[in-house]
Amino acid sequence: MLSDKSKQETLDLSAQTLIKQLASMHASELAELVLSCRNDEERLQLIASIPEDLLGDTLLELPEGMKDDLLAQLNTRDIEEVVEHLDSDDATDILQSVKPEVADEVIKGLDPEDRRGIEPLMAHDEESAGGLMQAELFKVRDDWYATKVLNVLRRWGKSIENLTYIYAVNQHDKLTGVIPLHALLFAEPDEEIWRIADVDFPSVLVDEDQEEVARIFHKYDVLALPVVDKKGVLVGRITADDIIGVVHEEATEDMFHLAGLSNQDDLAESVRITAWRRGVWLMFNLVTAVIASAVIAQFQATLEQIVALAVLMPIVASMGGIAGTQTLTVMVRGIALGRVTFANAKRALFKEVKVSMVTGLSFAFLIGLLASFWFPEHGSTLGLIIAAAIMINLLAAGLAGALIPLTLQRLDIDPALASGTILTTVTDVIGFLAFLGLASIFLL
Amino acid sequence: MLSDKSKQETLDLSAQTLIKQLASMHASELAELVLSCRNDEERLQLIASIPEDLLGDTLLELPEGMKDDLLAQLNTRDIEEVVEHLDSDDATDILQSVKPEVADEVIKGLDPEDRRGIEPLMAHDEESAGGLMQAELFKVRDDWYATKVLNVLRRWGKSIENLTYIYAVNQHDKLTGVIPLHALLFAEPDEEIWRIADVDFPSVLVDEDQEEVARIFHKYDVLALPVVDKKGVLVGRITADDIIGVVHEEATEDMFHLAGLSNQDDLAESVRITAWRRGVWLMFNLVTAVIASAVIAQFQATLEQIVALAVLMPIVASMGGIAGTQTLTVMVRGIALGRVTFANAKRALFKEVKVSMVTGLSFAFLIGLLASFWFPEHGSTLGLIIAAAIMINLLAAGLAGALIPLTLQRLDIDPALASGTILTTVTDVIGFLAFLGLASIFLL
Repeated sequence: MLSDKSKQETLDLSAQTLIKQLASMHASELAELVLSCRNDEERLQLIASIPEDLLGDTLLELPEGMKDDLLAQLNTRDIEEVVEHLDSDDATDILQSVKPEVADEVIKGLDPEDRRGIEPLMAHDEESAGGLMQAELFKVRDDWYATKVLNVLRRWGKSIENLTYIYAVNQHDKLTGVIPLHALLFAEPDEEIWRIADVDFPSVLVDEDQEEVARIFHKYDVLALPVVDKKGVLVGRITADDIIGVVHEEATEDMFHLAGLSNQDDLAESVRITAWRRGVWLMFNLVTAVIASAVIAQFQATLEQIVALAVLMPIVASMGGIAGTQTLTVMVRGIALGRVTFANAKRALFKEVKVSMVTGLSFAFLIGLLASFWFPEHGSTLGLIIAAAIMINLLAAGLAGALIPLTLQRLDIDPALASGTILTTVTDVIGFLAFLGLASIFLL
Repeated sequence: MLSDKSKQETLDLSAQTLIKQLASMHASELAELVLSCRNDEERLQLIASIPEDLLGDTLLELPEGMKDDLLAQLNTRDIEEVVEHLDSDDATDILQSVKPEVADEVIKGLDPEDRRGIEPLMAHDEESAGGLMQAELFKVRDDWYATKVLNVLRRWGKSIENLTYIYAVNQHDKLTGVIPLHALLFAEPDEEIWRIADVDFPSVLVDEDQEEVARIFHKYDVLALPVVDKKGVLVGRITADDIIGVVHEEATEDMFHLAGLSNQDDLAESVRITAWRRGVWLMFNLVTAVIASAVIAQFQATLEQIVALAVLMPIVASMGGIAGTQTLTVMVRGIALGRVTFANAKRALFKEVKVSMVTGLSFAFLIGLLASFWFPEHGSTLGLIIAAAIMINLLAAGLAGALIPLTLQRLDIDPALASGTILTTVTDVIGFLAFLGLASIFLL
């Protein structure tokens, strides 16, 4: 319940009733309550009344930005109490969200066992297997008998949540196999444990990216994965429930990046901060829109004479934009799910180009006809020109939609990042250039 | 390995070596192999060589559309062999993908125990808890002693994969509590099992939507959830590894729908089918683009006199489109993650409108200045007009971006479906109307 000072401030009679009620709630319900507060002040008051054994889990359920803001308001003693009630992986998440000097001080204050669990985790990137894993696991020597394992488990395993697998290691602490807990129950008492261990059970390296870890979970349908270092030494485990959060987070990040949103954007954030974050992306879009306008400006003389071009040009741009976005989204998602890899990228690119040619030809024909009927004063020339422009732009859209994310991926940049805006710049510029350029040549 | 006829066709010497190799692979690796085939013929040949105990899992790893196509090529006997090697939930997935009469015939051919597991599952929607759950679980009467539970478990539990929780039921088969497997190990032999059961463990209703099931997993951080019917009777369980697939699937669906893509779109699909599916959405976009063009057509006289309007109008449309997409994406994702609910929708809407006003004012000022300097011949009037148009369009973008998904959600339609195209139609039409309309009034 935080430090004594905060306590005194809030402990009147009604507050006591409130605290009792809060203590009976689940952390995720408390997080919803915190989210529904109108402002940071209300939030801090509520936070001060949440029992300390629930506070850590509550904070972890909040959006990243809000969690960091609230943690910044707590003092070292408060954070220590929060951390003491958490598993090592969650404690590390909290400590990686506060200033390094505060984290150091908190770690110094912990009891030695907690410290031993947390310190090695602090070294890992938050978005790696090491950042996801927890140190709490149950490992045994692979030459132990089943009875011994069961006895040790009865003595030491009680504190481990979601204990589903037992990990077998050799004398150098290297992982040699995984035993599902229920397999242990079916073992003969005098069976050596390596005999019932699954030696092909997948494991992940400690510095593996969390997106790849999610893919491995999805691929092998397991409830937990052991984490090993480069030497094969068992250093932690990741459970499937944590991966559900990762998958949500990664999908949100891709969707937000595609839409020109910061991945910190959140409904609970203040209007000022949201407007600022979105403004940055709108500014980027403004620059690219001005580039497209500058292209149009080159054809002012043509537009003055044939105003039908101004009427039709958004169709060329819009069709290119949508077709490109289709390809872009398929590629970004394919990369995220591991379906598009370096090996098959060329084939994916070819397919997108072929699809662009088919849709390009069809819509070129359709839109060409439409333009000829709409503006009969230009005969069939206008129709042919817009048909050519649509064909060119849909091909460019397919190429750009595939090449932009592949290139970003190659450069180790998130393939979704700003792809949408770059793509529409390409389709706008090429669309306007092709349409107005051809018109200047053939209609004037 | 499929029916005898298919066997004969493929069983030459090299095929035998192939089959041995295939048998040593994991289903997800086999699926990657199937995906990398150039066409359906190659795929069918490969499928015919995959050992039958791996074929079902392999098919389930494939994209929906391809799985259905390949299943349509198999005969009843083949499908029966595939189904026999699967857990009830996976078997049901396969049977729900084939023609009802084929499914009925296959079910008739199964041995009674398998049939009892599968038949009740067939009644549920594929995207509901009932469609995800499996019948294989370990349940005990809540008044049994721990020793008895352990003995029964040793006798019957061997066949259950990912056995992590034991379910306690009363004499009417109603779920009364959940016991983590390891808690059973710590129980005294003569302890009644209900004493160590978690009675507050979450459960889901059998007709709950899979998106909501994923939210409950995420909320409570559990590795499996019991599924009950309306009376509270335990009917199945869902494990976290299945939910990782659901979360991937739902996120892909939302991203694809936002981008104007069928959720069946896939890299491995033929060019013809992909082009057709995307063409449908492009057609929809063409209609909306023509509406925007029709708006511009109303102002041909104005455009003829002031060609600067044609140069600047894409900026108004593009800024509105991006700002609206930002709001739309935040709302669609918020709804999907359960962050935007009926209760707080109004607050979310207000926030988006406020953000639109702030960004609208800032960019109105900036773009107004830009236009005044770019086309000084129109004095400050053009700048004021485009500023007003930007302000109006960004406000409309915020409103439409929030209201479109909320309305679709209210109507029980996927909030992501076609939202993107509807939104850009709104911002194009309002942007062009405001900009060209104001110009006709004040610049002519």
